[in-house]
Amino acid sequence: MNPRGCARIASGHPWIYRQDVVSGPEADARTGGPTLVAVLDERRRPLAHATWAAQSPVALRILQRQSEKKPLPELMALVAERFEVALAWRQRLALDRDALRLVHGEADGLPGLFVDRYADAAVMQTTSVAMDAARPALAEFLKKRLGVRIVVARDDGSARDFEGLPRVREIAAGGGATEVVYRLGENRLQADLLTDSKTGGFLDQADNHAVVAALAPPGARCLDAFTYHGGFALALARRQGAVLATDEDAQAVARAKANAARNHLSNLEVRQANAFDLLRSLEADKQHFDVVVLDPPALAKRQAGDHAAFRAYQEMILRGLRLTKPGGLAVPCSCSGRVSRAQFDELVSAAAAQSGQSLQILERRGAGRDHPELAGVPETGHLKCWILRVL
Amino acid sequence: MNPRGCARIASGHPWIYRQDVVSGPEADARTGGPTLVAVLDERRRPLAHATWAAQSPVALRILQRQSEKKPLPELMALVAERFEVALAWRQRLALDRDALRLVHGEADGLPGLFVDRYADAAVMQTTSVAMDAARPALAEFLKKRLGVRIVVARDDGSARDFEGLPRVREIAAGGGATEVVYRLGENRLQADLLTDSKTGGFLDQADNHAVVAALAPPGARCLDAFTYHGGFALALARRQGAVLATDEDAQAVARAKANAARNHLSNLEVRQANAFDLLRSLEADKQHFDVVVLDPPALAKRQAGDHAAFRAYQEMILRGLRLTKPGGLAVPCSCSGRVSRAQFDELVSAAAAQSGQSLQILERRGAGRDHPELAGVPETGHLKCWILRVL
Repeated sequence: MNPRGCARIASGHPWIYRQDVVSGPEADARTGGPTLVAVLDERRRPLAHATWAAQSPVALRILQRQSEKKPLPELMALVAERFEVALAWRQRLALDRDALRLVHGEADGLPGLFVDRYADAAVMQTTSVAMDAARPALAEFLKKRLGVRIVVARDDGSARDFEGLPRVREIAAGGGATEVVYRLGENRLQADLLTDSKTGGFLDQADNHAVVAALAPPGARCLDAFTYHGGFALALARRQGAVLATDEDAQAVARAKANAARNHLSNLEVRQANAFDLLRSLEADKQHFDVVVLDPPALAKRQAGDHAAFRAYQEMILRGLRLTKPGGLAVPCSCSGRVSRAQFDELVSAAAAQSGQSLQILERRGAGRDHPELAGVPETGHLKCWILRVL
Repeated sequence: MNPRGCARIASGHPWIYRQDVVSGPEADARTGGPTLVAVLDERRRPLAHATWAAQSPVALRILQRQSEKKPLPELMALVAERFEVALAWRQRLALDRDALRLVHGEADGLPGLFVDRYADAAVMQTTSVAMDAARPALAEFLKKRLGVRIVVARDDGSARDFEGLPRVREIAAGGGATEVVYRLGENRLQADLLTDSKTGGFLDQADNHAVVAALAPPGARCLDAFTYHGGFALALARRQGAVLATDEDAQAVARAKANAARNHLSNLEVRQANAFDLLRSLEADKQHFDVVVLDPPALAKRQAGDHAAFRAYQEMILRGLRLTKPGGLAVPCSCSGRVSRAQFDELVSAAAAQSGQSLQILERRGAGRDHPELAGVPETGHLKCWILRVL
């Protein structure tokens, strides 16, 4: 470990890049080499235990810092130990839902491992060579420890490309249907954990669904312009007002419609539409809503550059504000890691200035407490959900 | 109004500085001149209605932007109208307390006016020449509209110096004791609205008291090192663990002790101590807590410069982290407007790196929803309350 790498470990960052590694094993868990290694400084003093990747840009993911020489732990023993801590914390949260994140990678001391629970099923994701190699053991561990019927591996995200890992999705343990029905507050939602987006749902927003719905007045007329499976819309529909939910994706629309029916929410209308086109057309029709939720997929990924993405967010927020009644709530969100919280504040201020409306910031929320962020590692906490009120 | 002032109005900022005013009345509400003025651009086109201050650095506080010439409203009619909107919103919040902010100045469209309710009393603060001149009318209005027994004016803050207004505190309407007992959740607290700090309590933290207490495990051993009247400590003591609360100020300590007794919380110990000395001595004694709350008065005001203030915050957070058990919560706060949310994030990360602990950021909270921030005006939202969990 060169001095820069040593400093990075001392600072508590869990990722050490290849260029800071002076020497390491030629093979890793993927090629018959070690899963865990002891990290030493240039004078061979012990610094940490870490998982090892021989090829990917992030060479080391720190599992524990230490100044004394200690035997390397066994990966699965460490997983089992930290899993209990993560699980106990989630139990203490007493969330009003049966779908939640149980392990949030680095932020739960388990770099490269993500575990979600959905009712009687679990979904795991591995984003490091070490965790990838441990997939069969992890799947069996989760099935047994959680008593779930099935464990689905959703190792089909872009984070895997970065590590040089193949994209795969499969039933990793157990069996039966990959479609599950899970509960968020009063609502039940269906998702296919193997084929729908992300791990089936976007659980990081689940608490925000409930908080926004609780702030909506009874009978509120609501718009949820990027609804996916209906998360915000279903929660808002419980307030008994007319709710319009749209998504560009036909499959998401079908799921959202089925979820509305499942919960007997006939006041929730789901339509297929491009959100930006929809916002423009609602504005042209002089429509106004008590609550406007805008929770797009990461615009900053899809656009040519950051500038275009920022413009897209600002336009989205501006159009949302124009559709919000005085006294109503606008809830713009961003899941893009390339837009910082401070930058999102600037986008909101700029949109408010442009719309000519005075705007209260009631809360700047992020992901739920089951998706904690690791201090110093903003990559572990990208979700922004601002609750605004138009004066 | 010069072009810079016009641009500022167009951007929605409610404060226009003197140097952007081309010409205005020589007198203002304090000296027999107008309370409200019509703001025009250099071609004498209407831009806004605003309150006027002939001498203070902020010359104009925008009440409403408009592009057509309209008759000037009467200040008290505008106050009455906007007060109803502010009140209706607070009622919808259904807060679990009888002390709350009813009017939050600029963020409620009433620049220079702040109103808090405490049980059967109200406290008002005016920080502009126009609102200051309207104090008798405002006090009578509040007494009648809210049906309160007494209205106290706490016009003794530093914001008044900036406007060239004298510092005063007085009974502005009604009468009887200025000491009141108010309710925050399960607890009752006593404060003297005329002589205690701020408006008697620090109501912007009230929701955070409840949220932190709800996250504390039953029986949690807790430290509240800047307790004032016991806000966090009383809420935490409801979890039945041993709670230590300290404050440097003897009068605050007496109040916190009386509040502990009033709520029969014999598990809450209140001591007079300098928080930094206390943190050092608890660390030397190897004490550890399940919850450590650090909610100091604005350190950035008290220190020679920002650098020293930042160092003080960082030291405070570091020492708090060292006193927090693994799995425990650390809750550092800052009410200093000179420390941005992004800077507070940096202070937390730096303290985590220095302490060698891994730290989850569970929530980045601010003031309660009864203290909204006006988008684009960070001065209206200075409170930061981060809920951290030590891994």
